[in-house]
Amino acid sequence: MKTIMIVTDGLGGRPTDIDGKTCLQVAETPEIDDLLARRGTGGLMDPIANGVRPGSDTAHLSLFGYDPYEYYTGRGVFEAAGIGMDLTENDVCFRTNFATIDSNGNIADRRAGRISESQDELEEALADLESEKFPEVEVRFKRSTQHRGALCLRGPELGGNVSPTDPHELGIPIPESSGQDEKSKKTASILNEVTQQARKILDKHPVNEQREKEGKLPANAILSRGSAKYPELPSVEEKYGVTSSVIAAGALYIGVARVAGMAFKQVEGATGTVDSNILNKAKKSVDELEKGKDMVFLHFKGADNASHDQDAEAKTKYIEKVDDTIGWLKKNTDWESTHLSFAGDHSSPIQYGDHVADPVPVMITGPNVRRDELKTFDEYSCMKGGLGRFSGNLLPMTLSYSNQLPKFGA
Amino acid sequence: MKTIMIVTDGLGGRPTDIDGKTCLQVAETPEIDDLLARRGTGGLMDPIANGVRPGSDTAHLSLFGYDPYEYYTGRGVFEAAGIGMDLTENDVCFRTNFATIDSNGNIADRRAGRISESQDELEEALADLESEKFPEVEVRFKRSTQHRGALCLRGPELGGNVSPTDPHELGIPIPESSGQDEKSKKTASILNEVTQQARKILDKHPVNEQREKEGKLPANAILSRGSAKYPELPSVEEKYGVTSSVIAAGALYIGVARVAGMAFKQVEGATGTVDSNILNKAKKSVDELEKGKDMVFLHFKGADNASHDQDAEAKTKYIEKVDDTIGWLKKNTDWESTHLSFAGDHSSPIQYGDHVADPVPVMITGPNVRRDELKTFDEYSCMKGGLGRFSGNLLPMTLSYSNQLPKFGA
Repeated sequence: MKTIMIVTDGLGGRPTDIDGKTCLQVAETPEIDDLLARRGTGGLMDPIANGVRPGSDTAHLSLFGYDPYEYYTGRGVFEAAGIGMDLTENDVCFRTNFATIDSNGNIADRRAGRISESQDELEEALADLESEKFPEVEVRFKRSTQHRGALCLRGPELGGNVSPTDPHELGIPIPESSGQDEKSKKTASILNEVTQQARKILDKHPVNEQREKEGKLPANAILSRGSAKYPELPSVEEKYGVTSSVIAAGALYIGVARVAGMAFKQVEGATGTVDSNILNKAKKSVDELEKGKDMVFLHFKGADNASHDQDAEAKTKYIEKVDDTIGWLKKNTDWESTHLSFAGDHSSPIQYGDHVADPVPVMITGPNVRRDELKTFDEYSCMKGGLGRFSGNLLPMTLSYSNQLPKFGA
Repeated sequence: MKTIMIVTDGLGGRPTDIDGKTCLQVAETPEIDDLLARRGTGGLMDPIANGVRPGSDTAHLSLFGYDPYEYYTGRGVFEAAGIGMDLTENDVCFRTNFATIDSNGNIADRRAGRISESQDELEEALADLESEKFPEVEVRFKRSTQHRGALCLRGPELGGNVSPTDPHELGIPIPESSGQDEKSKKTASILNEVTQQARKILDKHPVNEQREKEGKLPANAILSRGSAKYPELPSVEEKYGVTSSVIAAGALYIGVARVAGMAFKQVEGATGTVDSNILNKAKKSVDELEKGKDMVFLHFKGADNASHDQDAEAKTKYIEKVDDTIGWLKKNTDWESTHLSFAGDHSSPIQYGDHVADPVPVMITGPNVRRDELKTFDEYSCMKGGLGRFSGNLLPMTLSYSNQLPKFGA
């Protein structure tokens, strides 16, 4: 049997979204409703636990069955894994920005004018970053979209409890990083060394000379934040005995899934925004299952973008696009042998524009499921769903229906 | 007030059991339904947690209120306690089989032809087992039904993380046990010594000479598995302040309950199969309460046997037998002062024939209970029950209704 777990980021809403209704209530979702009514059962899920306001990274860990209080070390490691860096338990990772430092040595722009060209050349110039104090530590930098990137330090005895060099403030010098414990002090000292080195390398780089000529802000520094030591979590295959792929566009989601051992598959046109070609993502999911994977984690990001933009119409339309895509999946999958679970990773009401702790609607559909009486899928109908209210662990719950879960005990 | 906690092993099912219904839905259970409708409230319980596929041992720990992630060390200790061995925190225990080794020294049968006679004489012969390397360690062997038994090593500095000498394979010699840490290496070394000693003792034992004459497979070795160090858990009386007895037939369930400090009471005709005299078990439960015990844990095993046999009819009939027995209990108990909770320890759907993570139906009945509107007890009706969905801890939940639960905090 096969499993598709779909997470629509920020799916849950509040009655303040649109005239007393949530975007999910307003959206026309005939395909999702039909799947629930004919093959599924619904409920409400606290992504992490009731009363916990989830981040997207901690929520996804929890949905995959990893206790984030045990395994979450910080965001850097997921961003680094998400942009394709290979990591080991000896890595400490940071999210980075290309930034602009002015002639007084102060931060003038945290995003180097949202630099959108020649970042590859800058990345190449930073390939020689190294620690003179600790030459055994490997220093790696990789750019991502626009000003974004990741920095990883690999070596023994490195701690991850390190303060950022990105102060989220302008007009001040880059702050020195400091570490909370002996191992983290070592990491902080290397980060400070590398930050200075990068300043020197970037300052006189031809790309920046050219940018200044064109009146653009130079990308003459990297700022680091989200320090995280690689968490040693058992892979999804070790935990549950299934092979899996992740189909997503956002680096963070790809990263969490890769760290959990899922294979990442690139999809043309997948952008992580409301305009993403999510039909292509559905097609790639079916491909992966047909090529032999037991499970696909399919992530749709646009609903959360629209929530952060406080754009109820965009969110509603995006949910309808997800519904169309699920309609395509229904036509192109063997439902007699496929389980599909569908949920948000957190609620993101329009009026607030950020994550809240309200539980998210969830459904599990497919053979073996005890069906409830729900006919429509939203935050209100799911209050009466057969799954009741539960916390996280959506992946193992779904896998149990295909009899693919190892037993705990005898 | 008195408490009876009834667990019907493997009670929960799936719509694939019988024509779209579960065995519990198909079974006629007028007594259970009446008890729920008039005196109770229902719900769905994840025996351990949502998305966790329970073993019977871990599930029972969790139902009694012990976190199995903290207390579960392995099955051996419960099997040993279940067949009546007295244990201390210095014991490491194994489940054993009498087995047959051929003339080449290879395992020919893991169950010595399911030996069914003279095991007492073999047990007696093994009373002298001892470690020459560690004479301070006490070695104890006890037979159980057929080929089954338990081996306990008692001594200081013994670890429980030890590989089995039962390879679950034929045609190979008995494998050497190895330990994961220093203390467990000591245990493994003693286990290997004792396994060789048992070979020598059994090989020339008159019982085996006689068996060979009769063309039966000799029981000339013991194979050990399920290594477990005794878990130091507070007793039910220490935790909840109640005295208690266990009425069960399966060694595993008796064992978990005994380790939790419940007194075991033997019942004539209780076999742990669908044919068991479960009415006698109900009678013994009432006896125990009348003799002064606060609580009885009453375990019915047959539903799980039928589930493992994938026999829907046998499971349905067994559930009806349980219903009759509850009818007897209702007539022979003072319901104004008795709480009865009723649940499965896990779901075991017929089509799969093994444990799954689907939650189990549960009800708590008796005075003080806030009654819901349920009229029938099954996996579907309980979706709407007043208890909602919760994880484990059924025993303390039930005890609270009789105002017998200690306060956490002030």
